[in-house]
Amino acid sequence: MKKILVAASFPKEAMRGLTELAEVFWLRDLSEGELDALLPSVDCLFVQFWPQELTRERLARMTRLSFVQSALAGVNHIPFGDLPPGVRVSSNAGGYSDEVGEFAWALLLSGAKRVVRWNRAPEASVGRSPLELGRDVIVLRDGVLGVLGYGGIGRVVAGFGKAFGMKVMALTRNSVDEEDVEPLVGDAGLDTILKASDAVVIALPLTNSTRGLIGKDRLEFMKRGAILVNVARAEIIDQRAMYQHLLLNTDFVYATDVWWTKEGKEMYPPELPFFGLGNFVGSPHVAGPSAAAAGRPLRNSLDNLLRFAKGEAVSNVVDPADYV
Amino acid sequence: MKKILVAASFPKEAMRGLTELAEVFWLRDLSEGELDALLPSVDCLFVQFWPQELTRERLARMTRLSFVQSALAGVNHIPFGDLPPGVRVSSNAGGYSDEVGEFAWALLLSGAKRVVRWNRAPEASVGRSPLELGRDVIVLRDGVLGVLGYGGIGRVVAGFGKAFGMKVMALTRNSVDEEDVEPLVGDAGLDTILKASDAVVIALPLTNSTRGLIGKDRLEFMKRGAILVNVARAEIIDQRAMYQHLLLNTDFVYATDVWWTKEGKEMYPPELPFFGLGNFVGSPHVAGPSAAAAGRPLRNSLDNLLRFAKGEAVSNVVDPADYV
Repeated sequence: MKKILVAASFPKEAMRGLTELAEVFWLRDLSEGELDALLPSVDCLFVQFWPQELTRERLARMTRLSFVQSALAGVNHIPFGDLPPGVRVSSNAGGYSDEVGEFAWALLLSGAKRVVRWNRAPEASVGRSPLELGRDVIVLRDGVLGVLGYGGIGRVVAGFGKAFGMKVMALTRNSVDEEDVEPLVGDAGLDTILKASDAVVIALPLTNSTRGLIGKDRLEFMKRGAILVNVARAEIIDQRAMYQHLLLNTDFVYATDVWWTKEGKEMYPPELPFFGLGNFVGSPHVAGPSAAAAGRPLRNSLDNLLRFAKGEAVSNVVDPADYV
Repeated sequence: MKKILVAASFPKEAMRGLTELAEVFWLRDLSEGELDALLPSVDCLFVQFWPQELTRERLARMTRLSFVQSALAGVNHIPFGDLPPGVRVSSNAGGYSDEVGEFAWALLLSGAKRVVRWNRAPEASVGRSPLELGRDVIVLRDGVLGVLGYGGIGRVVAGFGKAFGMKVMALTRNSVDEEDVEPLVGDAGLDTILKASDAVVIALPLTNSTRGLIGKDRLEFMKRGAILVNVARAEIIDQRAMYQHLLLNTDFVYATDVWWTKEGKEMYPPELPFFGLGNFVGSPHVAGPSAAAAGRPLRNSLDNLLRFAKGEAVSNVVDPADYV
């Protein structure tokens, strides 16, 4: 039987199926000494956020480790550089798609329809003509939706865009089956999408090549009244450039569920006073957790762990070169 | 040539097509004396809000009047009891469907995903675990959507519900073509929909039979954590019952673009302090105006006026018995 060390905060009873096929240990049950004794025999790690107990030194002693399953869709929290050679890492891609896709569309519509602005300061609309106020509302039908990243979440968001009568363009390295979604690649593809789009949803992983992908220059050639939605990772956007852009372009909206990190911790509220801006919409990183509450991410990652325990091929293996 | 009196605030150049087929007069161009002289020869009125110049006495003198076209989708502003006998009235049904449908979905998602709550008081989430916060988020997929009124707006909203993976139930007197929309009628049908739904969108006209349709009793048998969206007319809901229900049921959300009237005028902000409630979302009646800004309602009502001018059958004629 394989040995699996669990460092995720799911209830134990939810993992009963796995305990029949593997020896499962819970990090939170182990003393420092017990953990040290166990390390050389662990085959697999199941992590949510990377546990601080698993230092570089301890990882070096996990000589049997061959597989790491992330409970999160993003794997940028995993210290790829410190993993023993040959260890495969799987993301929880798809486990959060429906719920995060719904949340992205909520952020997009809250921005496009100015719902947040009107509810932060209801009195600002008093005495103004509805016909005048109505001109501030963005209509999505017949507009262009840019989807950056065409994985599980991107596909769900693209589906909503089509249901709303939008033309959909997707940034993706993979092929796209849907005839009515235009796939584009690389920096030139990204620029084309940003220039054409009335609304853009970021659903990319945070990798070496996506960090800082959208800075001052790219923001400046987006449409003046565009909505930019982020349900991926904040670091894909340059924080200072974003703040300046919102200050100077009051019709542009940035709506985000994710926040820039400082010393590995998401800063909420952020360092810059985004919440003071009328064209900003923010939520406290709840899109993924709303899926976790529904139970599907756990089932999705458990399915992969069961495959590993049975010696079958695992899904959603990431390329370490994207992260080291 | 028919004589058409225009009392709507559209630009004159937008109505050029009509002026080739009919004699068009603009209320705002006429002195009191000119208006009085014109009244007996007017065949048709094109109104947006009912103009105060057209008193009961003046209406009685419009002996040739045979048709009233409303620029608004709702016709409850029209004084049916004062119209000369035999005058047909057409609503602008369909002219606002796409835009108001989009807006309804924005209100629904802003409520379901708690986006407004988090942006009114961002600091309230600080230090709380995202997993705990995520449990407050309503996931629409696999839930039930109730659509009250299955006209143009109701159909658009039902389409969004299906795209979001919801089961759709519709309250309608008409037949429903879509196989995956369950039609229900009457008070019993309404009760069934309200009891089953996770989200309800009101897209009914305000008529004698829909005024006060949803009061204390019906609110109390809705789901505790349901979202109720109103893009129709506020008076379909009892104001005081709604306020009390929100106070006592903090997981229930009321999200509205329309407001209760006092002496014929919409009260925004409302008389009761709805904006002080964390489970309320409000916007200053901009769903329709956002469509007006896009130009489609004008084209839609102009098409009907052109039919009238050519002596063809007009569309969207309402039944006065619903309003007198």
